[in-house]
Amino acid sequence: MRAFHPFPRPLLAGRKSYRHPPPPPIVGHPRSLAPPISNASCHPSTLSLRSYAKASASNLPPVTVRTATTLTGQPLDRATFDNMLRRRMFYTPSFEIYGGVSGLFDYGPPGCALQQGIIDVWRKHFVLEEGMLEVDCSVLTPAEVLVTSGHVAKFADAMCKDPENGELFRADHFIRDALERRLDGNKKARGQQIEKKEEDPDTRHDKKDTIIPRVLPNAAVKEYQEILAKLDNYNTKELGELIRLHNLKNPATRAQPLPPVDFNLMFSTRIGPNNHLRGYLRPETAQGQLLNFSKLLNFNQQRMPFASASIGKSYRNEISPRSGLLRVREFLMAEIEHFVDPQGGKKHPRFNDVKDVELVLLNKKTQLSGETQAQKVTIGEAVADGTVDNETLGYFLARIQLFLEKIGMDQTKIRFRQHLANEMAHYAVDCWDAELLTSYGWIECVGCADRSAYDLSVHAKKTGASLTVRQQLTEPMEVTEWEIELYRKKFGPHFQKDGRAVEAALVATTQSEREELAKDLRSNGSFTIKVDGVGDGTVTIHEELVGILQKTRAENVREFIPNVIEPSFGIGRILYALMEHCYWHRGIEKDDNGEDRGVLSFPPIVAPTKVVILPLSNNYAFRPFCHELSQKLGKLGISNRIDDSKASIGKRYSRNDELGTPLGITIDFQTAQDRTFTLRDRDSTKQVRADEDGILAAICSIVYGNKTFRDIECELPTFLAQQL
Amino acid sequence: MRAFHPFPRPLLAGRKSYRHPPPPPIVGHPRSLAPPISNASCHPSTLSLRSYAKASASNLPPVTVRTATTLTGQPLDRATFDNMLRRRMFYTPSFEIYGGVSGLFDYGPPGCALQQGIIDVWRKHFVLEEGMLEVDCSVLTPAEVLVTSGHVAKFADAMCKDPENGELFRADHFIRDALERRLDGNKKARGQQIEKKEEDPDTRHDKKDTIIPRVLPNAAVKEYQEILAKLDNYNTKELGELIRLHNLKNPATRAQPLPPVDFNLMFSTRIGPNNHLRGYLRPETAQGQLLNFSKLLNFNQQRMPFASASIGKSYRNEISPRSGLLRVREFLMAEIEHFVDPQGGKKHPRFNDVKDVELVLLNKKTQLSGETQAQKVTIGEAVADGTVDNETLGYFLARIQLFLEKIGMDQTKIRFRQHLANEMAHYAVDCWDAELLTSYGWIECVGCADRSAYDLSVHAKKTGASLTVRQQLTEPMEVTEWEIELYRKKFGPHFQKDGRAVEAALVATTQSEREELAKDLRSNGSFTIKVDGVGDGTVTIHEELVGILQKTRAENVREFIPNVIEPSFGIGRILYALMEHCYWHRGIEKDDNGEDRGVLSFPPIVAPTKVVILPLSNNYAFRPFCHELSQKLGKLGISNRIDDSKASIGKRYSRNDELGTPLGITIDFQTAQDRTFTLRDRDSTKQVRADEDGILAAICSIVYGNKTFRDIECELPTFLAQQL
Repeated sequence: MRAFHPFPRPLLAGRKSYRHPPPPPIVGHPRSLAPPISNASCHPSTLSLRSYAKASASNLPPVTVRTATTLTGQPLDRATFDNMLRRRMFYTPSFEIYGGVSGLFDYGPPGCALQQGIIDVWRKHFVLEEGMLEVDCSVLTPAEVLVTSGHVAKFADAMCKDPENGELFRADHFIRDALERRLDGNKKARGQQIEKKEEDPDTRHDKKDTIIPRVLPNAAVKEYQEILAKLDNYNTKELGELIRLHNLKNPATRAQPLPPVDFNLMFSTRIGPNNHLRGYLRPETAQGQLLNFSKLLNFNQQRMPFASASIGKSYRNEISPRSGLLRVREFLMAEIEHFVDPQGGKKHPRFNDVKDVELVLLNKKTQLSGETQAQKVTIGEAVADGTVDNETLGYFLARIQLFLEKIGMDQTKIRFRQHLANEMAHYAVDCWDAELLTSYGWIECVGCADRSAYDLSVHAKKTGASLTVRQQLTEPMEVTEWEIELYRKKFGPHFQKDGRAVEAALVATTQSEREELAKDLRSNGSFTIKVDGVGDGTVTIHEELVGILQKTRAENVREFIPNVIEPSFGIGRILYALMEHCYWHRGIEKDDNGEDRGVLSFPPIVAPTKVVILPLSNNYAFRPFCHELSQKLGKLGISNRIDDSKASIGKRYSRNDELGTPLGITIDFQTAQDRTFTLRDRDSTKQVRADEDGILAAICSIVYGNKTFRDIECELPTFLAQQL
Repeated sequence: MRAFHPFPRPLLAGRKSYRHPPPPPIVGHPRSLAPPISNASCHPSTLSLRSYAKASASNLPPVTVRTATTLTGQPLDRATFDNMLRRRMFYTPSFEIYGGVSGLFDYGPPGCALQQGIIDVWRKHFVLEEGMLEVDCSVLTPAEVLVTSGHVAKFADAMCKDPENGELFRADHFIRDALERRLDGNKKARGQQIEKKEEDPDTRHDKKDTIIPRVLPNAAVKEYQEILAKLDNYNTKELGELIRLHNLKNPATRAQPLPPVDFNLMFSTRIGPNNHLRGYLRPETAQGQLLNFSKLLNFNQQRMPFASASIGKSYRNEISPRSGLLRVREFLMAEIEHFVDPQGGKKHPRFNDVKDVELVLLNKKTQLSGETQAQKVTIGEAVADGTVDNETLGYFLARIQLFLEKIGMDQTKIRFRQHLANEMAHYAVDCWDAELLTSYGWIECVGCADRSAYDLSVHAKKTGASLTVRQQLTEPMEVTEWEIELYRKKFGPHFQKDGRAVEAALVATTQSEREELAKDLRSNGSFTIKVDGVGDGTVTIHEELVGILQKTRAENVREFIPNVIEPSFGIGRILYALMEHCYWHRGIEKDDNGEDRGVLSFPPIVAPTKVVILPLSNNYAFRPFCHELSQKLGKLGISNRIDDSKASIGKRYSRNDELGTPLGITIDFQTAQDRTFTLRDRDSTKQVRADEDGILAAICSIVYGNKTFRDIECELPTFLAQQL
């Protein structure tokens, strides 16, 4: 393994991955590329993608947040960035004229189109290219399903309440905030610099006001830092003890909150008119796919392996949503359930296609050794040396990496972090999160887990449905098993009306239980077994009634419950990270509102609008050209908008740079004379000039990813006037 | 206006609308085209698309259901058809291994892909071509929003309960079923034929068992028929009276249900951890768009008219979901809110482009005269003679028609029915439903309403937000209005602490109220006004305190609340109707399961899979060809599947005909020799043969709608062997 290198070299020759164009000249800030990822961290961001075991990276020592940067390495000021997103209506708080509801957001036209672009690429990259079976399942889910899956019992956060004002807190957030306030107070008292934390705009104000300078003993500082580092490992009771032990209080009321209780994160409702059927809004799309396993296997003509996929909304009733678009109550997920035979090492038939894909991995071992230095390796190496458990899991990690590149993620801000043993459910084999670096730190955006046969097994057990694969064997297989034989002549008369119950209890025993019973039978001539409702619940059976023997038989069919590899994408988080990764601003020039001139350098494949059509002025002669071009682009399937507002051409360019529109066609007086147009590149602001056919051909080749604007510059004459 | 003609001529020359190919030769059934639509009807099917005023076509005389037919005019047997849809996993009941939940369905791979195809066409046809602003808004909605919109108070169905077994019924359905049973009993007693009704498979059984032969007096027959015809016009209390008056009982218990109560159809939940904020799952996507009006207007640079659009799930807690995919509890909607200046006759700038589009209209006048004969007219004529209220509404009706044609709806099974006055909310100007003929009768699939300024007005009033358009006038406009002048010197001392409340009450008066108050002031020297919380709630104001005068001033800005034209699409209903419209079967030959050999003749543009690749046999030599073709098609963006299962080639063709796959490539021994392939047309089963380039070019031109298979037959040599 090589240490991580900040300049990734091109991945998978021949595959199309978006490479951001060479950076434009920057006025005011020298171009600086992001520093190597090393001591980066953040509050453990859990999308909780099916990891009820507390997801966390928090065995790591406390470390400082790497300063957030733009695509071109400028410092990223989140307030300015967020302002731009709202001004351009990428998103907006839902129901804002009614005061809004925290954790609920609407996407405006550019946000909605960007989301659609990401989904289109996802569907092509995964569903079409991999031949997955896409399904669309109900969001409303009866409680019974989610009881079986474990969500009703375990999908909860610890919540505590202020006894004075009734305010509710997520217990771990409450402790974190309280301890950080004390640590900051200690620094203040000692005259040390208080680090500016990249925290929420909404909580920042609170904290500033409540930092009281007070010196802490060194031992306390160390203790608090240790607690913060492993905050996600405490259970609800332990969190309550921490609050009590350290006498943590709500600064607003000076009261200590009541002991925390578990708050289930699912939205509940009643289905049907009679209130009998409790239901929940699904917290993930996976269950719908899993429940349809047998039908999907049938649809796939009994062939294994195969994958299903689903794109749809899921819901989590967060106690205190924060971090803008990152922790919300309603969100779009795209999930894959890849069903694979657990025997044979979970090979993947196309693993060879991706084995040279390089990933930045932060594996278990590194994390446990206290390091945060991620390593760049090929997935082939990582599977070969056992870092990644199996080929199928590795295949999907590589495909996730390629997807993130394709939509334009900054390759220096992607890493895969392996879950530690205490983060995974007991049945999980291995689990990796694709994390993206944002101004909120490293954010879990895709989870990719090998969940063994757990999910299908629990649903099969609960419902009695057969969620197995029956595989015809080419040659019979010898199976040695403990079998129970009832000596019916005596068994029946002996147990009389209880006979059925006793028989059922015997049949339900597992192989290892039978082995034990056989031992008892051999040594004692009898064994006891629990049978509900018969006698005192325990029945003793003598050897003249039942025999238990190990027998070997030949099987022509092998029956097994497949394992599930589950890549699970939080589309909203990916969308937000992509906006940060593609953002930069044109140096120190401000626009008329005193804002930085922001640019969103989305790859054309996901850009909300591909082309903006700009008449130089309001001159009436320009209009027919605008409409003709717009129609022609529409017929070519290229989304475009005419911006003929009264603002100056410069302002209109700036507006469309903020909207992330990669190309602009300008119609000027020369157009009216010779029917030529200029084509402007968002990123470099360079322009070329050509006739309609030339311009349309150039646009098509850029939008469909065959050429870059650089290529076009070599083909068409440069245009220099009106340049901005 | 011309009477409706069953063979529509091509619409809008130059526009692409899908024309089903000439029907294939049918064995067993002579080809018969659907009869003219005349006495068709059904139980009024209300998607209740924002029509809280009971939607209904039920002033019509009771009429019999036209026999359902396939695309080629064969009788459509719903059980066979439905069997095929489930066998091919177009859809499946959600949570089936848990027993299922009525009204909830999952789409399997072909259903999901068909839905995606419909959405893609919708987005291109409406959002891209019309430059609409697509948004994605929250499903979770705080109660306050839906109180304002009227849903909390009025979005309900009458529900009654059996006192014996607690069974719950939708009151109108209960009455309909009970009266129909009596009418059937009367027929049975008189030895008349009981019409087979196209009802639900799940209720059919019940009814058959409960038909007791009993002669009814002629007057009773007439009365029952009249009640059935206008069943949707009764309110909850009146429905209760009908049950009492006619002593209607639940056949299962012989008990009369309790008086009906209103049951609100929204799913409710609580948002956030403290249970304070009641929320609902949205029953439509419209509210999110309306609440964002000002931001969207701003995004559109203050230009009018413009439209927003949204595609997303909505929820209705139906009392007794039935009719398969037609009345479900969770469904996908696509809605448009077109904002238009109410002044100037609601012209539409592109109306001229659609004025020659022909629609089958069932207008108000025809319905009220007791006729059901729809008329075929151009939308230009319908707007000109006032049948359709305005150009903008007419424009959207035409665009809806074109959309339905584009996705492959049978043009003889589309009509537009105008709402009667009693079906519309008081504020609605005009409303039309696009209805599609299915085996359940005419089903409302798209609603298109001119809702005036109602929605924006109520939200503005409730929140104080300005949901208006400010239009700079080219020359000042004279405005004459009643103005209230407070003589503050006396007003303040007179009312003292109540002054503010009285002033607010005065300011809140409308123009017409002010005119009345001015009259009082003139004749009595005083007037009275209600002021909550002051004295006994009524305040008398004398002329020395306040003056009310009509004044004329010049305005440079006109401010108005736009009107909303709202086309609203039930995607699930459209999807179901499309499957019926595209379905037929190959004559009397049955497959091995004794099923008809069904075909789903989807147009390539929406077909779930465009191409199936079939190796003639399991021969190893065929495999590389399959994978190479599949990859090449994938790169061209054409969805395809390899079907290399062991079934015979004929069986595999049949399977893919049922999946609606328009094209099949067969790889045979000749392929291995000369690298040529055959291309099979699903509808005619004809085949041509060519090399790879020829086949791929043919597929592209068919899938992208430039050519039909007929065109290809003229270009490439026919292949006759292996034909089925």
